[in-house]
Amino acid sequence: MKLRVKVLEFFAGRPVAILNVHTADKINVHVDERVKISKKKNSIISVVDTATRLIKPNEIVVSNEILEELKLKKGSCVEVSLAQEPESTEFIKKKLNCQALKKDEMQKIVQDIVRNALTETEIAYFVSAVYKCGMSSKEVEYLVKAMVGVGRKLSFKGKVVDKHSISGVAGNRTTPLVVSICAAAGLVIPKTSSRAITSAAGTADVIESIAEVEFTEKQIKKIVKKTGGCLVWGGSLGLSPADDKIIQVERILHLDPEPQLLASILSKKISVGSDYIIIDIPYGKSAKVDKKRALSLKKRFESLAKKFNIKLKAVLTDGSQPIGNGIGPLLEIKDLLDILERKEKRPLDLEKKSVFLAAQIFELCGKSKQGQGQKLAQDILDSGKAFEKFKQIIKAQNGAIPKHIGFAKFKQTICAARDGKIKEVDNKKIKMMGVLAGSPMEDTTGLYLYHHVGDKIKKGDPLISIYTESKIRMKDVRKFYKK
Amino acid sequence: MKLRVKVLEFFAGRPVAILNVHTADKINVHVDERVKISKKKNSIISVVDTATRLIKPNEIVVSNEILEELKLKKGSCVEVSLAQEPESTEFIKKKLNCQALKKDEMQKIVQDIVRNALTETEIAYFVSAVYKCGMSSKEVEYLVKAMVGVGRKLSFKGKVVDKHSISGVAGNRTTPLVVSICAAAGLVIPKTSSRAITSAAGTADVIESIAEVEFTEKQIKKIVKKTGGCLVWGGSLGLSPADDKIIQVERILHLDPEPQLLASILSKKISVGSDYIIIDIPYGKSAKVDKKRALSLKKRFESLAKKFNIKLKAVLTDGSQPIGNGIGPLLEIKDLLDILERKEKRPLDLEKKSVFLAAQIFELCGKSKQGQGQKLAQDILDSGKAFEKFKQIIKAQNGAIPKHIGFAKFKQTICAARDGKIKEVDNKKIKMMGVLAGSPMEDTTGLYLYHHVGDKIKKGDPLISIYTESKIRMKDVRKFYKK
Repeated sequence: MKLRVKVLEFFAGRPVAILNVHTADKINVHVDERVKISKKKNSIISVVDTATRLIKPNEIVVSNEILEELKLKKGSCVEVSLAQEPESTEFIKKKLNCQALKKDEMQKIVQDIVRNALTETEIAYFVSAVYKCGMSSKEVEYLVKAMVGVGRKLSFKGKVVDKHSISGVAGNRTTPLVVSICAAAGLVIPKTSSRAITSAAGTADVIESIAEVEFTEKQIKKIVKKTGGCLVWGGSLGLSPADDKIIQVERILHLDPEPQLLASILSKKISVGSDYIIIDIPYGKSAKVDKKRALSLKKRFESLAKKFNIKLKAVLTDGSQPIGNGIGPLLEIKDLLDILERKEKRPLDLEKKSVFLAAQIFELCGKSKQGQGQKLAQDILDSGKAFEKFKQIIKAQNGAIPKHIGFAKFKQTICAARDGKIKEVDNKKIKMMGVLAGSPMEDTTGLYLYHHVGDKIKKGDPLISIYTESKIRMKDVRKFYKK
Repeated sequence: MKLRVKVLEFFAGRPVAILNVHTADKINVHVDERVKISKKKNSIISVVDTATRLIKPNEIVVSNEILEELKLKKGSCVEVSLAQEPESTEFIKKKLNCQALKKDEMQKIVQDIVRNALTETEIAYFVSAVYKCGMSSKEVEYLVKAMVGVGRKLSFKGKVVDKHSISGVAGNRTTPLVVSICAAAGLVIPKTSSRAITSAAGTADVIESIAEVEFTEKQIKKIVKKTGGCLVWGGSLGLSPADDKIIQVERILHLDPEPQLLASILSKKISVGSDYIIIDIPYGKSAKVDKKRALSLKKRFESLAKKFNIKLKAVLTDGSQPIGNGIGPLLEIKDLLDILERKEKRPLDLEKKSVFLAAQIFELCGKSKQGQGQKLAQDILDSGKAFEKFKQIIKAQNGAIPKHIGFAKFKQTICAARDGKIKEVDNKKIKMMGVLAGSPMEDTTGLYLYHHVGDKIKKGDPLISIYTESKIRMKDVRKFYKK
């Protein structure tokens, strides 16, 4: 069908065409399906939106991506027809029928995801397929290769080490400590982190409360060259763009199929050029995984890494309760500083775990002999070298260590109603309370936990302090707590 | 976040908001996710698109659906925040884990589909779940009830009968004959049909080549009151809007899970108020289903109908080859007229099947005694009463019986290369050839099949004539045929 181009001047991030509803009906195309738009010998495939009033039946609104590709102007005439779906939809259907995908099929899917040839709806079918059918080791290997193949790659000089924690434990802000200890030991640790998805804070959110976290590749290289480490947000680097897109679709139903989890983490680590990686898998009640799945993950991670010549060790850790006292960006910064500054009252559980992870890295990459990593990591922390390194990194990221941390306007403390012993602290509920308090959007908000499982308490002892910037939020958190 | 409304004046068919990419990032919302837009005490949930250039970071473009609901004007200030997903996403996830859905859960999903609270991506997860996990009889019953509940319902006086053929057989245009015979017998048969999805023609496409098929509920009632029947397109009636939406998402991967097939057909039949229904299930090689699945479908259809107090009989028919000679709108009209006008050279396979289906209806609704339906149906056809009724219906639908049917400009006939016997005619390949020829978009195009399986042929005998409106299409069809 011949249509006249109407120009609205917008970039949609991918080719998008808006058709009049009746025109779409005639072409037999629906919202989120595709049309082929041709001008002379050039053509482009575009996702379709529909509208009435904005566009006449003989018009088509196209995003600037299409304007530029086909060199169109206002009033240009284009031929528009129903587009065949990309070949990769066949492979998605194949996977949905639980058949194993071949290397080139997996590659085609990943490539089509990145070049926006597959819609969110089609990606949802792929995610469902992986969720329901799983993937063989070979398939995960193909997926990682394909993901790395379509993304950017960084490379650093020296022994490049890395760590990653499977999410699911509230607090658990080991990354800034591990990075500081490792960099202070002379290792290279260019750590990219995520922002919170469903939790009260991701590492990027926490660091962002005192420094910048969004940098270009070039800037990151400069920071790492100067300090040996970094604590940046990985999202804008395009390290594994296919993975970013898939995660976006998984979020919708909070799905996290194991093969995708493996491929997601490993593809990003490969893209930043890590040679030695420690994967922290917290397990337990209210953690993301139980012991059985944690063990299976460990096995799959370690065997997968071998295919890529990467030294990787996965360690199982206790994820049955929150780690550290603070939940929320600045409250977690306080925990970190208390440890780095060697305050007497500091969250020892968070310190212990961070030292353990750094020690694992030391032993994996040969910085320490087996069994001696612990001592080296602890020494670096005790000596203040880790704190110096942390300050250096924060400064390189245009930040500064706050002399005084100001928390949110409203603070209420929940106290124990009777004597007793703490039996359980639920990660999910604590995270939810943190989110309700305003984290990570308002970095002064969150929770302070006074106790861990096993602690004896007396009636009237403080249990949790809640920090919010508004009375309504305080009410929301308290309501949730009561429930 | 406070944003200023920019007006583009468009209806998108559902609430759609376009945000600047950076604003979307800040709100932590992605394309196809949702925001809550509030103005004073009113708020609305909207799907998000993103753009740059068209919109500044402090602006939001909203579709007229939102403008009207919130009474907004150009420059109005609205509060925009990440919206929680609807509760029904939880039920979709539950189903994706193969847990049975309860009545109210199914209802919530269907309601959210219809009110556009679920996006295509979320519906894809639902379709995947049904595809992978199936549904119990109880669940299908809930699904039908929910679908009927959200749609419009028609009602007609008299014995309302209906028929439906599971698609998959090329040609097979029994509907116009069955409707004409039944209406001529005094039954009420308000038949709604679909357009072609992947085939060369749906019944609506065929009838549309000589009459109108899009009518309002009121107009259909008038047509049926006058003639006892109709042959209209069901798409615009909103009979089962949830089903329409689900089918649209299924199309993307050409999925057609059995529970959804059952619910789709039955919900539409209930919505048009049918009391007696014959379901035609063609099975065999190159049909949609094999005998085993046909039998399972029959059983499920018949037991499901009982829950709704509907008399339904499913009949298994031979679907191993195309039925009739014409493939394509006007070529199929020719087949129909040859039968109705009692021409000597008429497609007897199509006549026989149509008489059989009408007879089944007669016997099901008590119009004939058992075993006598066949004779009554044949008599009505032989006597010319069916033809009179067909003319009446076509006239009521603002059409006319063509005196002479003009086919497409280009015609080429493929002849037998040697003596032999026709062993097989593949439905899928014939349909594909019809589509390549230009059907159903160009109603003069299509195929004419000279033979059926078992026919003896001699070298040089015509096998298939191809009708196209352009030489390029002719080349495409011949290329496909050779392959």
